[in-house]
Amino acid sequence: MRYDRSISIEWKDNLRVVLVSTRNPLNIGAAARAMANFGFSRLRVVNPYDVAFREARSAVGAAPLLQSAEDCSSIADAVADCRLVVGTTSVGHRELHHPIRRLEYGARLIRRRLAQAPAALLFGSEKFGLSNQDLSYCNWLMRIPTVDANPSMNLGQAVALCLYELARDPKAVKARPARTAAATAAETEQVTAVLIEALQKSGYVNPTTAGSTEEKVRRLVRRLDIASRDAPVLMGMLRQILWKLGEQ
Amino acid sequence: MRYDRSISIEWKDNLRVVLVSTRNPLNIGAAARAMANFGFSRLRVVNPYDVAFREARSAVGAAPLLQSAEDCSSIADAVADCRLVVGTTSVGHRELHHPIRRLEYGARLIRRRLAQAPAALLFGSEKFGLSNQDLSYCNWLMRIPTVDANPSMNLGQAVALCLYELARDPKAVKARPARTAAATAAETEQVTAVLIEALQKSGYVNPTTAGSTEEKVRRLVRRLDIASRDAPVLMGMLRQILWKLGEQ
Repeated sequence: MRYDRSISIEWKDNLRVVLVSTRNPLNIGAAARAMANFGFSRLRVVNPYDVAFREARSAVGAAPLLQSAEDCSSIADAVADCRLVVGTTSVGHRELHHPIRRLEYGARLIRRRLAQAPAALLFGSEKFGLSNQDLSYCNWLMRIPTVDANPSMNLGQAVALCLYELARDPKAVKARPARTAAATAAETEQVTAVLIEALQKSGYVNPTTAGSTEEKVRRLVRRLDIASRDAPVLMGMLRQILWKLGEQ
Repeated sequence: MRYDRSISIEWKDNLRVVLVSTRNPLNIGAAARAMANFGFSRLRVVNPYDVAFREARSAVGAAPLLQSAEDCSSIADAVADCRLVVGTTSVGHRELHHPIRRLEYGARLIRRRLAQAPAALLFGSEKFGLSNQDLSYCNWLMRIPTVDANPSMNLGQAVALCLYELARDPKAVKARPARTAAATAAETEQVTAVLIEALQKSGYVNPTTAGSTEEKVRRLVRRLDIASRDAPVLMGMLRQILWKLGEQ
C-alpha cells in the first residue's frame, strides 16, 4: 500500500514541468509544491510575469525545487532535450489542430515515454492558457475531464491533477487495506451475555418474552460487526454499568 | 470521449464537501472552483477563520456555489444527513484509529455509496488537518498517495484531486481519440515525386547514384507518417519551391 519511491524515481526525473508566461508567482509555488508531493523535480519557467517566483510563499516543502527551477527564454529552449512535448488545454472555443487526449489516457502515454527519455508537460498562463504559437511546439494535447460548463481550472490545481494521474497506481484501486480483525464468536457472545444481563437488571427484559428478547439482542449484536480490539472495551463498559445496576 | 453530465448529476449531488476550520478564504474559493470544474455542488463550511469566504477571489466559475455554501456550527451538523463520513489525511505522525484507504480505492467506495445516499468528505485546516476529535466523526480515512518526504498538500489541490478521482472515468484510460487519418499511398507518392523532382533541380541528386537516392527519399517520406490533410499542404510547398527553382 505504501508508495514505492525506489521504483519510480528514474522515470519521474525525466519529466520537465514547463510553466509558460505564468502571471502569479504563487501559482509557480503551488506547482512546485505539487511536484514535491508526487516526487517530480524538474521545473522550467518560460517568461514568468514576475521573476521573483523563487520566493513564492505557498511552496511548502518545495523550496529546493524552486531554487533549482530553470529560467528559459523560449519554449524551444525549455523543451530542447525532450523527445515528447505535451500541452495542456481546457479546450475552449479555439480550434485545435492537434490530437487531444483525456488526462486518464494521456498520462499513461506520457508515463510510458518517460521510462525511456525526457518529456515535457506544458502549462499556459492563468488567463489565456497556451497560445497557438506555444501549442505548435507540442506533439499532442491533454485535457483534464472537467464538466463542459466550467472547463477552466486553477493553474496549481491543474498541475497537481496531471502529476497525480502520472504517479497514480492503477493497482491501488483494488488494494484494500488490511481489514480490522473482527471479534471472534466467543468475544461477541461475551458482549452479548453481559448486555443481556444488564438489560435484565435494568428491567428492559419482560420475563414473559425473555426468550425472544435474548434472540433479538443476539442478532443485533452480530449486526454491529464488532472489531476484536473493541470487544474488551465494550465488555468493560457493560460490566461497569452492570456493577452500578447491582449497587442500587 | 466527452464528459457525460446527464448520467452523473444525481450521485454528484449526494456529495457534501466539508471544509473544517479553514484559515485562508482563498482556499475555500479554490475548493469551490474545483467543485464547479468537476460538477459537484454542495459545499459546507465549519468554523472558518474568516467568514468573508463568499468573496474569495480565486473562485472563477464558482460564485453561485459559494453563495449557496452552508455555514455549519459543528461537524455533527455538517454531516447529519450523510450515511458515510470520510476524513482526508496526509498521515503524519499521529496515531490513527481508523481504517485508512488510498485515494484510488477510497474514491471508488465513496462513489458507490453516493449512488444511494448522501456522503461527506471532510478536509481539515491548512496547518493542522483534521483533529482527532474531528476524525472521531468519520467512518474511515482517505489519503492522497504523495511521496513520504512531502506528504502535506495544499488544501485547494487536495480537494481538486479527491473530486477528480471521484469523477474520473476508468474507461477513459483506454479511450483513444480518433487518430488523424494517414495519407493514402497515392498521396504519399505524389509528395515523394515532387520532392525528388525538387532535389534533382536543386542539384542534390548525383546522377550516377540517382536510383538509390530515390529509394532513400521514398523510404524517408514513408517514415514521416504524413497525415492525409497535410499531404496537399506539403505538395503546395514543394510545387512552389519547384517553380522557383525552374525560374532561376
